Amino acid sequence: MARALELGARGLCGSHPNPSVGCVVLRDGEIVGEGFHARAGQPHAEPLALAQAGARARGAELFVTLEPCAHHGRTPPCVDAVIAAGVRKVWAALADPNPDVDGGGFARLRAAGIEVEVGLLAEQAQRLHRGFLSRMRRGRPWLTLKLAASLDGRTALANGQSRWITGSAARAEVHRRRAEAGAVLTGIGTVLADDPQLTCRESSCAYRGSFLRQPDRIVLDADARAPATAKVWAEGARRFWFTAADGPTPAGVERIAVPRAGSGLDLGAVLTELARREVNEVLAECGPTLAGGLLRSACVDELVLYLAPSLLGHEARPLVTLPGPETLEQRLRWRWRSVERLGEDLRLVLEPDSLSPSPDPHS
Amino acid sequence: MARALELGARGLCGSHPNPSVGCVVLRDGEIVGEGFHARAGQPHAEPLALAQAGARARGAELFVTLEPCAHHGRTPPCVDAVIAAGVRKVWAALADPNPDVDGGGFARLRAAGIEVEVGLLAEQAQRLHRGFLSRMRRGRPWLTLKLAASLDGRTALANGQSRWITGSAARAEVHRRRAEAGAVLTGIGTVLADDPQLTCRESSCAYRGSFLRQPDRIVLDADARAPATAKVWAEGARRFWFTAADGPTPAGVERIAVPRAGSGLDLGAVLTELARREVNEVLAECGPTLAGGLLRSACVDELVLYLAPSLLGHEARPLVTLPGPETLEQRLRWRWRSVERLGEDLRLVLEPDSLSPSPDPHS
Repeated sequence: MARALELGARGLCGSHPNPSVGCVVLRDGEIVGEGFHARAGQPHAEPLALAQAGARARGAELFVTLEPCAHHGRTPPCVDAVIAAGVRKVWAALADPNPDVDGGGFARLRAAGIEVEVGLLAEQAQRLHRGFLSRMRRGRPWLTLKLAASLDGRTALANGQSRWITGSAARAEVHRRRAEAGAVLTGIGTVLADDPQLTCRESSCAYRGSFLRQPDRIVLDADARAPATAKVWAEGARRFWFTAADGPTPAGVERIAVPRAGSGLDLGAVLTELARREVNEVLAECGPTLAGGLLRSACVDELVLYLAPSLLGHEARPLVTLPGPETLEQRLRWRWRSVERLGEDLRLVLEPDSLSPSPDPHS
Repeated sequence: MARALELGARGLCGSHPNPSVGCVVLRDGEIVGEGFHARAGQPHAEPLALAQAGARARGAELFVTLEPCAHHGRTPPCVDAVIAAGVRKVWAALADPNPDVDGGGFARLRAAGIEVEVGLLAEQAQRLHRGFLSRMRRGRPWLTLKLAASLDGRTALANGQSRWITGSAARAEVHRRRAEAGAVLTGIGTVLADDPQLTCRESSCAYRGSFLRQPDRIVLDADARAPATAKVWAEGARRFWFTAADGPTPAGVERIAVPRAGSGLDLGAVLTELARREVNEVLAECGPTLAGGLLRSACVDELVLYLAPSLLGHEARPLVTLPGPETLEQRLRWRWRSVERLGEDLRLVLEPDSLSPSPDPHS
């Protein structure tokens, strides 16, 4: 199963909106077939692994990171391939929460006399498939907020200069994270100040049969101030413009009206609309205002902070715009998930702590 | 030698102003004597280890973290004890830069026919004896700046509330660091705002024969605003009051006049005066103003940052008051020395990077 998870991770940059499933066929303790889902519309992991195994799949065990599908999508149901191959036993890390599957895959396999065991390395599989699971279970994408700061929590000099606070390794990793998330979200402030492309320009994302799909670009822009010439509107990916105002929509851009909330947009509504468009996972790369809004409204599932070993001083720009809590008990708390050196910087990954106060309904 | 370094570290909380030397006597591959210098005025590491070895010291090898002394201080010269014990060979990690020793110990040993080898685990020994070496070589104490902050680089809420941002493990470690440094430095802002004791109240500092000496307390107070009732003036340790103004001096406090520089005191002059008073090492625990001054004037040899997994927002108090650099090239750079989890927080230890700009002569 660990190998199946590894294989699944190879599909992260291209499989969305499908989950990046990995699969291994084991015969007498030997791997005889491997597969992963590299790109929506192309074959799933199970038929690929079974095809590689060929006749050796008969009586073999199949390890897969998610319940095999039982419905006709753009490809035939995987359970049919598993049954036809004569597999003896299926080990699945997780059941598929997709209402079209949801145990139906396991039922079909068992009805065909195949032994089924569910739950092996489930936690790791939940991490691999977090975007797909979040969309299916919560009706919203998994959201990672990426921040980069100096030791004193500053993201740019007072004059706006911020290139580069972090080193090249951190910047390359951000490109990889864009591709793996499949969608990048930013605010109008960043578009106007930096005019970013928000593309993945890191060649290591496509390797050994993987497919790199450029991530969707999402701009939150309550007052519709984004110019038609902004680089985020360039072709090559889906482009979503969330706004509460009217204005001409650039060609190829989908304009989505959502209500205002506080000084920005209703972020919950934004996430719901994204899930409707099959966005599994979002990497938010934005300025302190939107970052603060996402944090306050409890939209952040994971915080990735690249910490550079430098000091920028108290006049430099703050990491997040968050109105001060009245007491320390009311501060937003996090839990460390991992702490690692990355080139000259640190990469800190955190998840929300349940001790944090409830989200502010007005933000 | 690794064991000798371990033993030496046990003396850190009590040996100053002497170096916390550790010593091991090895006979036929077996440790037959161990010692460390626990308290100034009490026996040094070498005679303690030799006394434990007794007759087995004859023909043995002696490992010591610093060159044995050859001069009469409060105890007789260690080289006499080493020669009298009939040791065959001495391994020393470092030569003693003390002008009263400075190779004289090795010369005396060699003249007595004892083989001497210098440099084993020298780097580790330099770290163990950094305070003593700094005072001897540079005429100033080793200075560690301790900071504690949230993920967004904030030390307290806008209303000043800061108890507690970090967890109990970090706070206990700060108490140990106070004792190991032997002196704690703070600014008048912290004295007026928090009225801290700056004592070591962590019982784990005294263990297995170690001696805990309460650290000296140093207050930088250009305008002599510290009240006579401040807790830092309580008995139980040396107390130094650096100021450029006149005012009555509380009993038991040494008032030291130093010139002003910028909006504070001449920090270089402060460190020189401290070295004259045999202060080897200083732990600076202060507010953003003095922290910024120490950083700007390149007085900081080591930065220890306790990072708490929470966010306090942009209205909260900044980590350091540092006028903004004009360009990113001019920012203060650091190198990671260690990155570790400590209870619920992170402990980041950094040292200055040679790429940082030159210190500001006006600060």
